[in-house]
Order: sequence, then C-alpha cells, then structure tokens
Amino acid sequence: MSKPVFHYFPIKALGEPSRLLLAYGGEDFEDKRVTFEDWPAYKPHTPFGQMPVLDLNGKQYAQSYAIARYLGRKYGLAGADIEEDFLIDQNVEFVNDIRLKAASVHYENDAELKKQADLSKNVYPTMLGRLDAMIKENNGHIACGKLTWGDFVFAGMYPYLKYMLQRPDLDSEYPSFKKLEETVYSLPKVKAFADSAPQCDF
Amino acid sequence: MSKPVFHYFPIKALGEPSRLLLAYGGEDFEDKRVTFEDWPAYKPHTPFGQMPVLDLNGKQYAQSYAIARYLGRKYGLAGADIEEDFLIDQNVEFVNDIRLKAASVHYENDAELKKQADLSKNVYPTMLGRLDAMIKENNGHIACGKLTWGDFVFAGMYPYLKYMLQRPDLDSEYPSFKKLEETVYSLPKVKAFADSAPQCDF
Ligand SMILES: N[C@@H](CCC(=O)N[C@@H](CS)C(=O)NCC(=O)O)C(=O)O
Ligand SMILES: N[C@@H](CCC(=O)N[C@@H](CS)C(=O)NCC(=O)O)C(=O)O
Repeated sequence: MSKPVFHYFPIKALGEPSRLLLAYGGEDFEDKRVTFEDWPAYKPHTPFGQMPVLDLNGKQYAQSYAIARYLGRKYGLAGADIEEDFLIDQNVEFVNDIRLKAASVHYENDAELKKQADLSKNVYPTMLGRLDAMIKENNGHIACGKLTWGDFVFAGMYPYLKYMLQRPDLDSEYPSFKKLEETVYSLPKVKAFADSAPQCDF
Repeated sequence: MSKPVFHYFPIKALGEPSRLLLAYGGEDFEDKRVTFEDWPAYKPHTPFGQMPVLDLNGKQYAQSYAIARYLGRKYGLAGADIEEDFLIDQNVEFVNDIRLKAASVHYENDAELKKQADLSKNVYPTMLGRLDAMIKENNGHIACGKLTWGDFVFAGMYPYLKYMLQRPDLDSEYPSFKKLEETVYSLPKVKAFADSAPQCDF
C-alpha cells in the first residue's frame, strides 16, 4: 500500500484539522501542499474540483468535515455512542456557522464594510460568547467534556477564524479558545508534526 | 416520556430532512411550525438561537445536519461501516456546498445580480452536473448505491435549492434530482406524513 497523501493549499484553514488528525493517528503521510500555481493541473483530478483531498488505501477522500469525522472515528476520537457523536457533530456544525459568517463578509468587497461593522458589534459577540460557554461547559473541549475530533477541527481552524474575523484580540478576549488550540497542539505526536511543518499564519 | 417535538419555521428548507426522517422512523412527533411572529419568544430557549431544534427524550438537539445524521443512524439509514458513513457525509457536504453557494447570492442585494449571472453560467452547471453524475453513479441515491439519510437531506431540501438557484427548469434539466425527491416522498410512512402536512413551496 502506498503512503497516504494529504493534498491542500499551503495554509491551515480547512486542511489543518485533518493534518493534525493524521499526525495524532501516527499515520506516516505525505503532507502535500499544492501551490496556487500548481492547483489548476491537479483540480480536474479531485472529486469536487476542490481541496482538501486525502489519498488513503487507494481511495480518494474529499470534503473537510467528512474527512475529519472519518479520521476521528478511525483514531478513537469519536463519541462512545450515537448520543456523544451527535454532540460532537452539533458543536462542530456551530463552529462552522461562525466560520461561514466570517467568510461571507471577509470575501466580500468594500461595499460590505458596513455589514462587517454590524457583524462585529452584534453577531460575533453572541456567537463567540456561545462558543466560549460551550468550551467551558465541556471541560475545555468542544463536546463531551473530553478530547474528540471536534477539538482538532477547532484547533486547526482557529488561526483562520481569527484572521477572517479581524479580531486580533481574540486570544485575550476568550482565553478558552487559545487554550483549546494549545491543548491539541501540545499532544506529543501533533507537536512533533507541527514543529517540523512549514509555518503558516492561518 | 413526552412526545418528541420538532421545531422549525413553516417552510421545508433546513427542517424538512429531519421531519421526513422522523416520519420514516415511525416517530409519533409534534411537527411544531413556529411562525416568524412567535419566533422571538422561543429563540432564547434554543441552544444556538436558531432552528431546527428537536426535543427528544428530554434533550434538545440542534443543527440540521447533525440531527439528520443522528436520526439516520437511529433508524437504520446510516452506512454499514465507517467507509460508507464517510461517503454519505462527503456527498451530503457537497450538497451543502451547493446550498451555500446559492444562498450566498440569494440573500444578497441587487448589487449582486452580476454575481448571480456569473454563478448561473459558470458555477452551477459544474456543481449540478457533478451532483447529477453522483446520483447516477449511486443507483439514484446520494451515496452507497442505496437509501441512506443523505437521500432525505437532498429530498427535503430540493425545493428550497430550486427556489434559491432560480432555475425553474431544474426538474427537466436534471431528471435524477426530481426522481430522488420522489423516491423519498413515496416511502409509505414519509408519504403518509407529507400527505397530511401543511403544504409549502420550499
Ligand atoms: N466543502 C468543502 C469546501 C472546500 C473548499 O472550499 N476548498 C477551497 C479551498 S479552502 C478550494 O479548493 N478552492 C479552489 C477552487 O475552488 O478552485 C470542504 O469543506 O472541503
Ligand atoms: N447551521 C444551522 C443553521 C440554522 C439556521 O440558519 N436557522 C435559521 C432558519 S433556516 C434561523 O433559525 N434563523 C432565525 C434566526 O437566526 O433568528 C443548522 O443547519 O441548523
């Protein structure tokens, strides 16, 4: 069987959660960072014309949350039953709501600056406060009061979230966020991976 | 144990997949359609300030895909193993990509009409063609060549998708879409539910 290959752009964003999960699982994988220049040649060979894509055991796996959930189940980071699995899924879907809200504005043009201001004042504080409460209720985790693949989704995407939200003080506003990122990045195999991986801001 | 209650607006959209799943599972549930007028009073009592929300066995379940996956596993509509579960998740995530793309424009203002035109010409045909191929490869289903909860997600959301995409000819452009909607709605318990449910366009 050939070595697993994980394909994504040279950023964290939607790819980092699965990179961290592969590292946690002790998978000897190739962390293929496809440049924006090389992307057009690879695009037609992906299932949906997008990345991330994981080549594993002769199959192609696409869609970032589906990959993260799959790897989580493979490496013992899922719930103990369907009730716990539900809680992870539910809370991850909420983290994704925050990402989508931020992205919808981040990728807009100047005409959207007013909308950005409104989100900053009215929407983000509510959503981020809810996320903060969720992490506190769960003993510093995304769900089930313990380490799950949901924590990897959050930790991997946190810098991207911070960047898109344009809230540089997020670490100090909500210390629970930074702490959860550190919880994941300090797991020995994850740390070893991250220490030798190319550095990227988000 | 009190009767399960499913709360959503009086539309199909993100709520219909779970309604259809509850019906398929033979659940004697209250199909609570919260009016936009009554919503502000209920909103603070939901986990994330949004619907759908399912009250089941004394617990609250939120986030539409998480609920659909959970009900699918409960009623025997999940995959046979984590490989099949992955395929359902992956393909459902792609259906959601199409929904998000359509929604991002649908809920925009007039300044976005140019973007809408571009999507119609360049983006939708590729994505919808991919979805059509996916359904054909899967024997008329979303994944695994058989009936899964992914089909309920598609069938429940199809009218909403059609509405947002502003492609009234979608049924004839891609007959596989309409056919899959009918496959789900003709399951006896689903049909019985739908026949007596309030009619809504999307
Ligand atoms: N729903 C997909 C979205 C993937 C996605 O948006 N990928 C982007 C990068 S973050 C991409 O491949 N863009 C290049 C393109 O569309 O050509 C997922 O979560 O994996
Ligand atoms: N990610 C959530 C999104 C839910 C959502 O957007 N709900 C909307 C209706 S489709 C809502 O409750 N809007 C009312 C509000 O936000 O006050 C899900 O899939 O359940």
